[in-house]
Amino acid sequence: MGVLSEGFTEVLILVASLVGIGFALFQWFLVSKVRVSGESGSGYSDRLIGEEEEGVDNLDASLKCAEIQNAISIGATSFLFTEYKYLSIFMGVFGAIIFLFLGSVKGFSTKSEPCTYSKGNLCKPALANAIFSTIAFLLGALTSVLSGFLGMKIATYANARTTLQARKGVGKAFITAFRSGAVMGFLLSANGLLVLYVSINLFKLYYGDDWEGLYESITGYGLGGSSMALFGRVGGGIYTKAADVGADLVGKVERNIPEDDPRNPAVIADNVGDNVGDIAGMGSDLFGSYAESSCAALFVASISQFGINHDYTAMSYPLIISAMGIIVCLVTTLFATDLFEIKNVSEIEPSLKRQLVISTILMTAGIAIVSFLALPSEFTLFDFGTDKLVKNWHLFFCVAIGLWAGLVIGYTTEYYTSNAYSPVQDVADSCRTGAATNVIFGLALGYKSVIIPIFAIAIAIYVSFSMAAMYGIAMAALGMLSTISTCLAIDAYGPISDNAGGIAEMAGMSHKIRERTDALDAAGNTTAAIGKGFAIGSAALVSLALFGAFVSRAGIKAVDVLTPKVFIGLIIGAMLPYWFSAMTMKSVGSAALKMVEEVRRQFNTIPGLMEGRVKPDYANCVKISTDASLREMIPPGALVMLTPLIAGTFFGVETLAGVLAGSLVSGVQIAISASNTGGAWDNAKKYIEAGVSEHARSLGPKGSDPHKAAVIGDTVGDPLKDTSGPSLNILIKLMAVESLVFAPFFATHGGLLFKLL
Amino acid sequence: MGVLSEGFTEVLILVASLVGIGFALFQWFLVSKVRVSGESGSGYSDRLIGEEEEGVDNLDASLKCAEIQNAISIGATSFLFTEYKYLSIFMGVFGAIIFLFLGSVKGFSTKSEPCTYSKGNLCKPALANAIFSTIAFLLGALTSVLSGFLGMKIATYANARTTLQARKGVGKAFITAFRSGAVMGFLLSANGLLVLYVSINLFKLYYGDDWEGLYESITGYGLGGSSMALFGRVGGGIYTKAADVGADLVGKVERNIPEDDPRNPAVIADNVGDNVGDIAGMGSDLFGSYAESSCAALFVASISQFGINHDYTAMSYPLIISAMGIIVCLVTTLFATDLFEIKNVSEIEPSLKRQLVISTILMTAGIAIVSFLALPSEFTLFDFGTDKLVKNWHLFFCVAIGLWAGLVIGYTTEYYTSNAYSPVQDVADSCRTGAATNVIFGLALGYKSVIIPIFAIAIAIYVSFSMAAMYGIAMAALGMLSTISTCLAIDAYGPISDNAGGIAEMAGMSHKIRERTDALDAAGNTTAAIGKGFAIGSAALVSLALFGAFVSRAGIKAVDVLTPKVFIGLIIGAMLPYWFSAMTMKSVGSAALKMVEEVRRQFNTIPGLMEGRVKPDYANCVKISTDASLREMIPPGALVMLTPLIAGTFFGVETLAGVLAGSLVSGVQIAISASNTGGAWDNAKKYIEAGVSEHARSLGPKGSDPHKAAVIGDTVGDPLKDTSGPSLNILIKLMAVESLVFAPFFATHGGLLFKLL
Repeated sequence: MGVLSEGFTEVLILVASLVGIGFALFQWFLVSKVRVSGESGSGYSDRLIGEEEEGVDNLDASLKCAEIQNAISIGATSFLFTEYKYLSIFMGVFGAIIFLFLGSVKGFSTKSEPCTYSKGNLCKPALANAIFSTIAFLLGALTSVLSGFLGMKIATYANARTTLQARKGVGKAFITAFRSGAVMGFLLSANGLLVLYVSINLFKLYYGDDWEGLYESITGYGLGGSSMALFGRVGGGIYTKAADVGADLVGKVERNIPEDDPRNPAVIADNVGDNVGDIAGMGSDLFGSYAESSCAALFVASISQFGINHDYTAMSYPLIISAMGIIVCLVTTLFATDLFEIKNVSEIEPSLKRQLVISTILMTAGIAIVSFLALPSEFTLFDFGTDKLVKNWHLFFCVAIGLWAGLVIGYTTEYYTSNAYSPVQDVADSCRTGAATNVIFGLALGYKSVIIPIFAIAIAIYVSFSMAAMYGIAMAALGMLSTISTCLAIDAYGPISDNAGGIAEMAGMSHKIRERTDALDAAGNTTAAIGKGFAIGSAALVSLALFGAFVSRAGIKAVDVLTPKVFIGLIIGAMLPYWFSAMTMKSVGSAALKMVEEVRRQFNTIPGLMEGRVKPDYANCVKISTDASLREMIPPGALVMLTPLIAGTFFGVETLAGVLAGSLVSGVQIAISASNTGGAWDNAKKYIEAGVSEHARSLGPKGSDPHKAAVIGDTVGDPLKDTSGPSLNILIKLMAVESLVFAPFFATHGGLLFKLL
Repeated sequence: MGVLSEGFTEVLILVASLVGIGFALFQWFLVSKVRVSGESGSGYSDRLIGEEEEGVDNLDASLKCAEIQNAISIGATSFLFTEYKYLSIFMGVFGAIIFLFLGSVKGFSTKSEPCTYSKGNLCKPALANAIFSTIAFLLGALTSVLSGFLGMKIATYANARTTLQARKGVGKAFITAFRSGAVMGFLLSANGLLVLYVSINLFKLYYGDDWEGLYESITGYGLGGSSMALFGRVGGGIYTKAADVGADLVGKVERNIPEDDPRNPAVIADNVGDNVGDIAGMGSDLFGSYAESSCAALFVASISQFGINHDYTAMSYPLIISAMGIIVCLVTTLFATDLFEIKNVSEIEPSLKRQLVISTILMTAGIAIVSFLALPSEFTLFDFGTDKLVKNWHLFFCVAIGLWAGLVIGYTTEYYTSNAYSPVQDVADSCRTGAATNVIFGLALGYKSVIIPIFAIAIAIYVSFSMAAMYGIAMAALGMLSTISTCLAIDAYGPISDNAGGIAEMAGMSHKIRERTDALDAAGNTTAAIGKGFAIGSAALVSLALFGAFVSRAGIKAVDVLTPKVFIGLIIGAMLPYWFSAMTMKSVGSAALKMVEEVRRQFNTIPGLMEGRVKPDYANCVKISTDASLREMIPPGALVMLTPLIAGTFFGVETLAGVLAGSLVSGVQIAISASNTGGAWDNAKKYIEAGVSEHARSLGPKGSDPHKAAVIGDTVGDPLKDTSGPSLNILIKLMAVESLVFAPFFATHGGLLFKLL
């Protein structure tokens, strides 16, 4: 047994999650102290309460800020509520499928069964598993919805405040944006932990000593979180790029008006998109990973010594790691908001990157403490049918290597996508010879950028897999995600700053203000890329952990590539990311086309719009983007959701295992290369525009031929980096967790086709 | 025992290969009857001997043709000889490595050893294996070199003849181009079979009854063929695109002169590139596949009942299938050259596609005959340590399904890359909104185009794997390649027609002639795409067969994804195609840059060049392209050659098995999508240029904005479809065959790193 007592464990998890939520609310309170005119009260009558203000802005500008913020907030909320409508139908249907499939395993019998792993004991009936898995599924989805909703709320609450704070200096604006990001980060991680903890305790009331059944049904929580991520990442990804491309194609190309011009009917939709895609989408993606890796670890532990011997503290090791993560991230946040002060534009990016390093170092110590206190010094873990002897310091290494692999991936991503380094500068340079060479160099950069992350992931997998089998992988994933609050804080900071810049432009604020928000935004681009790297890396580890849990639960002893069933699964699985990407890219195209038509219609039919006398119908563009994105996500969503069901039911668990392994090893490569290619093109364009070096100036200015070539690259990269690339995380994770949840059904009734032949 | 006697088998194989060679030479003779002025004799004095000629061309034009053909031929020969210089160094070094690695397995002992599979018998020493593997390696490379050399010769011999024949009508020109393609096709397949057959018989003089050792060392033949393909495909691929991009960037973009303009110094290099890349490259690629699948099948058979019982006829089943393929293709060729006559432009493409269907149908019958005559009605095959009972009709299905899967892949490729169908038309349509949407739609098309081929490959694998284990896979690959003569004929027809068009342009021939060669070329584009589809499909099957043979030879019982060693191999293997593609794409860029500099230099320093008064220095451009392409292929070549050696030596056979499986399932997807994306962009551009439909005309004409966007897509696609995509075939095949050859070494001395840990 470890040092920590059961009671102390319970208190620790509960307190950490409540502290996390409290901290988030406190940050929100601090942000709310910045007042936006017209917000309190029904009209736009209040004056902005501010200290001495720099710049030349007047009340008019701040009123405009309030108005724009309001429009963005309404747009975002309208997207969310439409999404929830679709989501609730989906959850109803899919919840029913879970119940029916799992219930049918033993013919809806209500008789207790002998346990599979805990020999000699009686476990709860399969019907209970069906019911509780469905409940856990709904809880996971609801928690993700709640966290996403609150994240969007704070993001659309903070954007105009950041703009207004930028008048007082870049430091104040930075802190407002960063605190708002932290609200999102801490709410998500703490809510996730709290609901999981409470669910386990409530489920235990029924399950009692049957931990096998308890943690088996808890895996539904991961499936719920991940299903929501399908809507967030895929739907959100389509939304943001449809609005972006639609706004640009008509506004910039046809009408020749600048970006973020308030005359463009799609401009609000575009800003909503930043929140929908990068805040809600990224949040739900990481929440899904977090929930899934916790569930995978808990499941494997439950069928190992911890579960069979009912060692509650050791069993809760994944939750304690997450609890420790919240505390570590809380301390880390203080370094950005209180211990140091940003006085200069050049300090922004280092400050954000320092967050990652500080949290990683502190967390390494945290992992060591937790591993030595919570775990027995030696224990056995389930390793595909055999027991594996593991020491507590083995698990320290598993979690720590995941954590540090995340840092390596983050920094590599930064190297390949930041225009401070040669890869992006080379891509920018290739614009000299036109758009074609820019595209070729960008694609090659993306391909090259997978090398180091894959080696980092491979090493993390090798170490954790060798030391603690599938439990080690799940814990490595959780290690990478242990600093999720900080990751999300610096990630959400990006779109908030981006929106702040857009609002400054639309409100007609001074050049000085715009320069400050641009500086914030530039740093946000880099952190967004790092965030995507983290998301992909953790998705890879999580999928592998879920894959291992699926294999254990389905009772497969080996996934041998040298059997035809597995091999065809492998090659078809490796094909799925391509199919899926083709679908998501096409979805963006179709949704953007609808937007283009609407924007054209408004420009053509609303008199005085181009002159700025009449306001465009923003709401209609938001509505079109919302509807189109959610409708267009159905085909790729169906591919993800149906593949495991079809493969498992008709071809059986071996083929399904092959499909999961294939899609994992192939999908992670496309996801990384697509994200980095897009990021590099974006920053190559920004590099030419900013013109900070001799080299960059030789390629510019805006409107030069190289710049035009760079814009083409940027447009190609948009759907790659914000839709098809990140959506692949969902593909690989969701298929794995779905397989895990349905494993008992596939193991019993699966492989119909081969049985018939 | 089968029906065929041993003696009859020997005669059959020998006769079929000699007939193939004779047929090829006869076709060459027929082509040679078209006389190009200035060819016989030392000067350009002879008049073209022709029948009544259409068109308005004079002696001057035909003299020019002869001159251009001569320049192309010299350029191509110069590339080949430089390549052979590098190749001979490579072969010397790598031959030594093979000898040392394999010799060291038993410490260069000259003592006979007990056989591994044929229990109770004595087998030849490991040193003999090392020596004969090295010899087989050299023979494989030399055969490939010879076939490639002759193919290039006939291609550069036929191009001007096709141009001249085009004056008499499209039918005559078609037959000239097609016959020349057939020379290449039949020489390659018949030479390959003959040398393999002779080698086996010579090796047998030493090995006697030790068939295990005999066929183990014969695998070196596959490695040799495939190593040569590295030079052909990768080096040739870089050459062709460096010359193409270099010529276009300066000529079309900077100097504003048309394509194929004789004033462009790189124009000859560009035409040489078509031969180097599409004739020699494709030929060596398919030859490699053919040699490898034969070797894989022979190896598996040798450790199965056929080998252990010394059933010579059954053992030679793969060779008899190839022999039958030559006969079937010979008959098929007559359908194009003698039985039907092309009178109309619209008959060209159907006639070429008919070749595929006819050869497939005839070959199906051929396979049935061979399977029933050569094989015993029931026998056992080695299946990873166990024996598998197989019937002769099982093998009929294995070979036939490979053959038909090839046809499905070919037709799917055509659907996605021909501008007669909606996918390419949609891509063309997307050019309306600019280059960015064109690139996005093109990439999505490529991703989508992998679905059907992967299902076709998966079904072929499942059926052949289930029926006859790894022998089935190897035979399915050989089935797909059994019509290689016809495939190569219609494939080589493409670049010959392309060159013919270029020569017509450069020689200033009439518009009518140019139209005819364009029609030939357009059909050639489609068949080139089909050929690439075949090459990739067969590469996938071949790699899997080699993979299986490697696993058998290395004594691995299972390649279990659920072991850390295998999994990290799998994910890193899946990454390699990305790394490799990044390298090859960058290589094209660097080589093209050198070409751009040289072309610019000539334009700037040679007075009177732009006015057409002085001829450019073609030879220097050819030299630069040659040197650059061969130097630039070193990094990607090293990646391919060193990966198996490093993985096997330091991480052991399990990790290497994972690497092979990962690179196979991931590489085949990128190869298909890259080739099809590039092909689609090319044809989308041609679609707009040709303007045959209302829709196409609305996008054109040449020089319109949509057309410019289409040109950008085409330029992006060039390295994808002609360099990085097809080169991946080599990556996956060569790593697999190299692993197979070195398997005894890895099994004995491999996995150093894990042994140390």
